[in-house]
Amino acid sequence: MEISHYGEFGLIRHLTENIELKNPSSVYGVGDDCAVINNTPEEGMTVVTTDLLLEGIHFDLTYCPLRHLGYKACVVNFSDVYAMMGTPRQITVSLGISKRFSVEDLDELYAGMKLACDIYGVDLVGGDTSASMTGLTISITAIGVAKHPVYRNGARPNDLVCVSGDLGAAYMGLQLLEREKAVFWKEYDEWRRKSNNGADGSEAPKFQPKFEGREYLLERQLKPEARKDIVKALQEAGVTPTSMMDISDGLSSELLHICKQSHVGCRVYEERLPIDYQTAVQAEEFNLNVTTAAMNGGEDYELLFTVPLEQHERIQQVSGVRLIGHITDEKLGCAMITRDGNSEVMLKAQGWNAFTQD
Amino acid sequence: MEISHYGEFGLIRHLTENIELKNPSSVYGVGDDCAVINNTPEEGMTVVTTDLLLEGIHFDLTYCPLRHLGYKACVVNFSDVYAMMGTPRQITVSLGISKRFSVEDLDELYAGMKLACDIYGVDLVGGDTSASMTGLTISITAIGVAKHPVYRNGARPNDLVCVSGDLGAAYMGLQLLEREKAVFWKEYDEWRRKSNNGADGSEAPKFQPKFEGREYLLERQLKPEARKDIVKALQEAGVTPTSMMDISDGLSSELLHICKQSHVGCRVYEERLPIDYQTAVQAEEFNLNVTTAAMNGGEDYELLFTVPLEQHERIQQVSGVRLIGHITDEKLGCAMITRDGNSEVMLKAQGWNAFTQD
Repeated sequence: MEISHYGEFGLIRHLTENIELKNPSSVYGVGDDCAVINNTPEEGMTVVTTDLLLEGIHFDLTYCPLRHLGYKACVVNFSDVYAMMGTPRQITVSLGISKRFSVEDLDELYAGMKLACDIYGVDLVGGDTSASMTGLTISITAIGVAKHPVYRNGARPNDLVCVSGDLGAAYMGLQLLEREKAVFWKEYDEWRRKSNNGADGSEAPKFQPKFEGREYLLERQLKPEARKDIVKALQEAGVTPTSMMDISDGLSSELLHICKQSHVGCRVYEERLPIDYQTAVQAEEFNLNVTTAAMNGGEDYELLFTVPLEQHERIQQVSGVRLIGHITDEKLGCAMITRDGNSEVMLKAQGWNAFTQD
Repeated sequence: MEISHYGEFGLIRHLTENIELKNPSSVYGVGDDCAVINNTPEEGMTVVTTDLLLEGIHFDLTYCPLRHLGYKACVVNFSDVYAMMGTPRQITVSLGISKRFSVEDLDELYAGMKLACDIYGVDLVGGDTSASMTGLTISITAIGVAKHPVYRNGARPNDLVCVSGDLGAAYMGLQLLEREKAVFWKEYDEWRRKSNNGADGSEAPKFQPKFEGREYLLERQLKPEARKDIVKALQEAGVTPTSMMDISDGLSSELLHICKQSHVGCRVYEERLPIDYQTAVQAEEFNLNVTTAAMNGGEDYELLFTVPLEQHERIQQVSGVRLIGHITDEKLGCAMITRDGNSEVMLKAQGWNAFTQD
């Protein structure tokens, strides 16, 4: 069904009907000039984060299903709220939609967003929907509460550096998707040439991408999760991080952010980096350095944080967290100790930078 | 200077340096995973609104200077907060920027946004900056407080229908800009043809658009204001609107929203519509019906609201507000009484709808 069937207001109604507000703080949702939120003082302060996702820059619809995209678009914002030791409660969703999308496409996108909201206990309370001359544009703002927000600037010398989960898998998933996409286009172009664009009556080849045994990598890239569980576990264990952020641009880049804003240095150990088996195997197959993938890959949406040395025992009781190093005096800079223990590699932000010239 | 000179983080730093937080509730601004806001319970509830502006759909950089665009992008969001009888306090700004923009262009855009924030007492507390494959994308979320939020759904039969300011001027401003743009391209294309694209050594014609005596129309289109003053005046006069929204899609469309959500009807009087002299003159020149411009033009960013009949005297003391009609029982529908008093025209939402097929 074409979007023009509904018109702007009708489309918003169609997409947002059946949305029930779950949180007592969500006083009024979609349908007025503003959404209205009423946090009680006991819940702490309000935290706000926003992300803009643009087709061709942040996602490729060739291999990113719209349902997964909707899910991921929400989760990356929730991740920012958890990275303050906060709890996401509401989101607003703005969409710029080109004419090539059908109502069913948008239903898929919304199904993914609604699923993410259900799983994370978040209400969709507003947004803006508009036509776009070009690709799909998704702008999401997440609003939450944090009793004691944890910033990037509180790391102190001797603090322990910790990360949740494992690193580099989302990056290897992306490489895998890009390879299969290239193989598909190669096969397709060959068929077009040989068949004179199908004029010989032959059918386009049915392409079956080779993803077996790599499911974890794809899931990390296409359907990441935010570490709500880690925030809860830290609170339950009485761990009070001195600084925290989520890993979206790569561990190296995020460590530099924390150290710069906290005016400290750090040492992390290559051998301590948490890397999944599939990530390691895929890196080997692609002849890529797995440490580079873990340090600079990005899109892991794991939590990077520092805790006071005194909480060493407490943090070790939290499952899914790995100690990877410690904070030093600022003048020592930020470095990784290599696996052989003999050399220090100074960290550089090699994360994704869309503004860099090719 | 090219944006790639800075890179993503450097660009954000450049654009957001020198931003000082003015509101005590703005605890932490740009530079972390989230902005942190701490409203006191006395300030009321939190209100949130968001707008997505896409090049080629919502603005045309041919005649919209970037500084004005930045200003307007903020003001349209503030307007939504005032339309809840709220006060905007913070915004987040997300930008998708194509390579044709220079750092100086973005400085202009930000100068407009900062000016709007200064004038309206709002803090820029966060956002997201990204490359775009296509045109300029601006997504702004405004956050504010409202002690007693006024919704669209509270209008009751016999309430008075009021609007602030005057209507239709922004629409006539747009028509004027579009005409002058067309004249410019016509002259330019003629020169290109005659001169063989400048091969005869002649220079492209210097174009001087004809805007004299039409400054108000341009200002209403390019640099609208949000009616902070009206909200303040209503509060001071002890007026308690039963429903309120801002006029962005046109009076007709907004009246239908209020009546539908409040389950009421309305009668508004053509002769009561507030129309500026320049709007009327321009409509005559373009051979357009000035009532149509006022009812369906859009982008006025005036406030439309209803007040109980008992507050008739109070509302008449508020300058800049016009009574244009009254609320009726739902079954009477929504209509405008024509100037001659003899006929009723049922209202239709003829507002802007980018999803309608041409």
